[in-house]
Amino acid sequence: MTVSPFDHPLLSALLGDEEAARHFSVEAEIEAMLEFEQALAEAEAENGIITKEDAAAIVVALAKFRPDTALLRAAVAKDGVIVPELVRQIRAAVGEPHGQKVHFGATSQDVIDTGLMLRLKSVVEHLDLLLTETVMRLASLKERFGGRALTGMTRMQKAIPIKVADRVTAWRAPLQRHQERLSEQSRRLLVVQFGGAAGTLEKLDDKGPAVRAALAARLGLGDAPQWHSQRDALADFAGLMSLVTGSLGKVGQDIALMAQGGIDIELSGGGGSSAMPHKQNPVKAEALVALARFNATQLSGMHQALVHEQERSGAAWTLEWLLLPQMVVATAASLRLAAELTGQIESLGH
Amino acid sequence: MTVSPFDHPLLSALLGDEEAARHFSVEAEIEAMLEFEQALAEAEAENGIITKEDAAAIVVALAKFRPDTALLRAAVAKDGVIVPELVRQIRAAVGEPHGQKVHFGATSQDVIDTGLMLRLKSVVEHLDLLLTETVMRLASLKERFGGRALTGMTRMQKAIPIKVADRVTAWRAPLQRHQERLSEQSRRLLVVQFGGAAGTLEKLDDKGPAVRAALAARLGLGDAPQWHSQRDALADFAGLMSLVTGSLGKVGQDIALMAQGGIDIELSGGGGSSAMPHKQNPVKAEALVALARFNATQLSGMHQALVHEQERSGAAWTLEWLLLPQMVVATAASLRLAAELTGQIESLGH
Amino acid sequence: MTVSPFDHPLLSALLGDEEAARHFSVEAEIEAMLEFEQALAEAEAENGIITKEDAAAIVVALAKFRPDTALLRAAVAKDGVIVPELVRQIRAAVGEPHGQKVHFGATSQDVIDTGLMLRLKSVVEHLDLLLTETVMRLASLKERFGGRALTGMTRMQKAIPIKVADRVTAWRAPLQRHQERLSEQSRRLLVVQFGGAAGTLEKLDDKGPAVRAALAARLGLGDAPQWHSQRDALADFAGLMSLVTGSLGKVGQDIALMAQGGIDIELSGGGGSSAMPHKQNPVKAEALVALARFNATQLSGMHQALVHEQERSGAAWTLEWLLLPQMVVATAASLRLAAELTGQIESLGH
Amino acid sequence: MTVSPFDHPLLSALLGDEEAARHFSVEAEIEAMLEFEQALAEAEAENGIITKEDAAAIVVALAKFRPDTALLRAAVAKDGVIVPELVRQIRAAVGEPHGQKVHFGATSQDVIDTGLMLRLKSVVEHLDLLLTETVMRLASLKERFGGRALTGMTRMQKAIPIKVADRVTAWRAPLQRHQERLSEQSRRLLVVQFGGAAGTLEKLDDKGPAVRAALAARLGLGDAPQWHSQRDALADFAGLMSLVTGSLGKVGQDIALMAQGGIDIELSGGGGSSAMPHKQNPVKAEALVALARFNATQLSGMHQALVHEQERSGAAWTLEWLLLPQMVVATAASLRLAAELTGQIESLGH
Repeated sequence: MTVSPFDHPLLSALLGDEEAARHFSVEAEIEAMLEFEQALAEAEAENGIITKEDAAAIVVALAKFRPDTALLRAAVAKDGVIVPELVRQIRAAVGEPHGQKVHFGATSQDVIDTGLMLRLKSVVEHLDLLLTETVMRLASLKERFGGRALTGMTRMQKAIPIKVADRVTAWRAPLQRHQERLSEQSRRLLVVQFGGAAGTLEKLDDKGPAVRAALAARLGLGDAPQWHSQRDALADFAGLMSLVTGSLGKVGQDIALMAQGGIDIELSGGGGSSAMPHKQNPVKAEALVALARFNATQLSGMHQALVHEQERSGAAWTLEWLLLPQMVVATAASLRLAAELTGQIESLGH
Repeated sequence: MTVSPFDHPLLSALLGDEEAARHFSVEAEIEAMLEFEQALAEAEAENGIITKEDAAAIVVALAKFRPDTALLRAAVAKDGVIVPELVRQIRAAVGEPHGQKVHFGATSQDVIDTGLMLRLKSVVEHLDLLLTETVMRLASLKERFGGRALTGMTRMQKAIPIKVADRVTAWRAPLQRHQERLSEQSRRLLVVQFGGAAGTLEKLDDKGPAVRAALAARLGLGDAPQWHSQRDALADFAGLMSLVTGSLGKVGQDIALMAQGGIDIELSGGGGSSAMPHKQNPVKAEALVALARFNATQLSGMHQALVHEQERSGAAWTLEWLLLPQMVVATAASLRLAAELTGQIESLGH
Repeated sequence: MTVSPFDHPLLSALLGDEEAARHFSVEAEIEAMLEFEQALAEAEAENGIITKEDAAAIVVALAKFRPDTALLRAAVAKDGVIVPELVRQIRAAVGEPHGQKVHFGATSQDVIDTGLMLRLKSVVEHLDLLLTETVMRLASLKERFGGRALTGMTRMQKAIPIKVADRVTAWRAPLQRHQERLSEQSRRLLVVQFGGAAGTLEKLDDKGPAVRAALAARLGLGDAPQWHSQRDALADFAGLMSLVTGSLGKVGQDIALMAQGGIDIELSGGGGSSAMPHKQNPVKAEALVALARFNATQLSGMHQALVHEQERSGAAWTLEWLLLPQMVVATAASLRLAAELTGQIESLGH
Repeated sequence: MTVSPFDHPLLSALLGDEEAARHFSVEAEIEAMLEFEQALAEAEAENGIITKEDAAAIVVALAKFRPDTALLRAAVAKDGVIVPELVRQIRAAVGEPHGQKVHFGATSQDVIDTGLMLRLKSVVEHLDLLLTETVMRLASLKERFGGRALTGMTRMQKAIPIKVADRVTAWRAPLQRHQERLSEQSRRLLVVQFGGAAGTLEKLDDKGPAVRAALAARLGLGDAPQWHSQRDALADFAGLMSLVTGSLGKVGQDIALMAQGGIDIELSGGGGSSAMPHKQNPVKAEALVALARFNATQLSGMHQALVHEQERSGAAWTLEWLLLPQMVVATAASLRLAAELTGQIESLGH
């Protein structure tokens, strides 16, 4: 099924991003969950919560574990999450007596949220690289054409002459601030979630914080108190993604406007039309605008999801799942398109 | 890839709807496009725009046509739409001299928008059936438990005693109005789009309206002047979908609230927890709330897409693709879940 | 205070609409509430719920009643609504023994929601007139310039020549559909809300429906069962308003794009610049785009407000108050601006 | 007129915030603009762009300048901004020969955007104080009741016992992160905007950066290159405001849920009902939810406004005006309500 263009076998060629989407495949999701369960067993053994034999048996079983996805699917329809069934399968794979120590003291949200963070860590690296590349492409554009003249346009009317460098700088500067924001946010975002049934790690007695720190260290994430009902870091990250696509939407809009007359810009590789073979549609520029407006739309829902009831909201949490992965892929696609589009600029200004 | 839960092999069991999603598969899309091209050839032959031999050759070739999807994918990345490449492939399959008459006088948007309408026609029927079923389930609920007492709750505080029938009526009445709205809207929505390069059917001389009417008739759609830059019927339909999910979100919220104390409602088949095996999470009720907030979010973007530049906006059109299919599937899923959830109610009121 | 441009003493000259805003003044609100209380007393007397003497005393007192707004303000801070305090003041004004029959069997939401409907009835008439005027202005534009040539633009690129009439028709057709929608919706929208404490009119025994029908008739509204937790008609109306502003946003965007080159359109009365006195900014066209995007934004919140808990949601209801009045004024302003802007078109096409 | 509850003489008692709203009064706006014009004259005199006599005459005239607001209102309807007319009035007040040096080298957007920043500087201080107060109130709540028991609720179902401290910590922790974010953002946000007609300060030759730095210093803002078409800092700030209201919406939702049964929480000063005098509606808690959903809605529009055409977009800029002031006031109101509401908690847990 291909309800979303990001998953669509044809449209994803324009609107998707393979590397970003890869982190939201079911394989990547489950892999991250298994990584959590392994690290948890090891961290708990390290702190004497389970035995070293328990942990060893769990690690061995996880290494060759393959989930029964048909059962997982049925379980989601019933439980809303795959974790109870996944844990059941892992426990069966480990066998007695060690199986019951799988997932000890943890809850579904710990696995899913920490699993998300493991994948967002890679996403953040990917976005950072894409940002760097786009900034460099714009720098090169400025170098090549910066000294040429452009008609400055304010309120969509001719204003006074400016230089190409002026406009390209206005495209690049926000991206540099986004790099700064990404770095600031990552510190708050990329942390472990570990709270147990209701956030108190009640099964770990006074060892909770130590296990959590060990778990975080093993997973390469920051350590932080449970945040299962505090979604501000995710909503903030969604906001940053929409800032990125918004800034690139402005670039796309400007390029589409420049391409109208065919004087200010020359683009290679424009899109063909089925009715008018002579046309060169600024397809990637338009896609940048569409992705900007898409993310601006989704962002609202991520902020609605901040209203999380009590210790865990099924509704608000599910809402995030419907929004965040697509925002990530839209952002990566937008950065990829922006880099490609600047590479297609043959001439800018006059 | 499974960026959207509606496409996700596991999560779609809860949040998706197979029948609705089927209409957004790439196969269904292309099939609808081929249906358009066939009906167009026939309508044009009927009106003397192309010869009967042209039409016959096109029909024969389309019957066994299989697109090269790798080339289509590459074309989307460049053209933003699959149509120029699809038409090229169809023309090659038809061969000379008739091949050049494929898609005569049409443009990409005609194929894509009319193709969407062909599929939305089935979607509207599906939603109508689901609405009917949910209304009936609620009627049966009212019959079974309507006379029992409930504590009326206003502003989340105990108010005065009401009957179960009072609350169930408040759940059902909006759905009945949505059926009325669906019928009113369908008339405006399910119409052919046929305008050619810029909406004027310039290649068909004075035969444009006749060909369009014949095309509409063959496709089982209403006839209407081109609307390629007038997206109000789609935005209105999106609004109706969000009304449906919003009304069901209220049902879900109410059921989740009733399920808190375990007194007002008894549900069978609630969701399990990985940390607390005793729990019965009201998973479907929560999903109704999540889908309501999801559609309310998306709707904003469909209305942003009304600001369509000139004769055709690539950006606004692409934005619709990113939003509408998911809204449809969310709506069908929500109706399916509501019907299932009401079926799980073992007891209501006291 | 002037937090919203619609209330701003300067900005409202561009972005506001006096006639629409008038219906959201506190005077208009309270007047509608008093009208409700009077009609309720009369309808209840008519049905023997209160005596004719009660009703007469209430009517007399209401005729000269002036609320103490300082007390109302303090009451809102505490109660979230003005009604309990307003009713207290009215009762005091009526005096004993009839005062206690004021508001009999009703609740705050009855007064506020029905009061809103009384005002929306005038709003609907105002919007209908404005729609008619804009449609006529566009018809006249078509008459004056329809035969001239324009370069059809698709995907912001030159396509093929069209006529001015083609573009103007694409501006007008949606507005005509909006008139149709307004008429369809009004029937469902403009109905009385009367349910009492929890929607069951429990104090009126079996006379509830009769009193409600009499109340509706006296107020010139349709009769309908209570809908206090069913907000679909309001969300649907909000959607229609956003369809109107969206369609006009497209007109504004087109005019701004045509005004870029100064060839396709000549506008009189354009906006001045503080830095470049030669400029003629297409201020009203831009405002149409801004208002379209504003309403598309707000609409999402109106649909979020469909998730109304149980018999009455304070949160969802308050959310409507924050959104709906501004959507109405934005829509009226947009229609006013569109009519003015088309009147400023000195020349279109070539 | 009182279209927005934030401006409404009654509703603003619940939903508004006087201190925040004060910064969006027309008086405050114009005062900030005059402050800009004075500082500009002084900075330009300091750098030899205008004479010291010019600057002195401007400063003297500004000190007693009173705008003709009727003319300003008419000008907004025509120009979309008040600045050209305001500058004309100031120039007339200064008189010849110095009057023509008023606003030298600047444009409307410089005055308006920098004027906004001057006011946002006070807003940021106000929000910071309110955040600090709410954090302290929550700390005191934790101190008073932290050791008591609460039933942990996950997915709106009873989970396991937790302590009051656990829930209160989950309320407070995001607010502390918001303080950190506010500090990080302020550095990027509170900077001068000064670019002239199209951002190049073309009238100041090579003195542009020096004048801008002097202007910033005089106004107590950071210095930064022009950002008139780069709105990321404003959209980011809007995001932070929605994070604050979202986090407090969660507090409100939790309190409303706790108040349902009347066991977990005791609140003083709850809201009265016109139908049921015994009720204590959790009005402020509901308002927190409404304000959270309101800001989550508006945020989408602020991100749509990132798609700013070329050197200045009238449409996107106007859209900001329709959204940002209300988001600020909603945020301040939400913080005020949260502080008040925690002060009304008589008992928490058991």
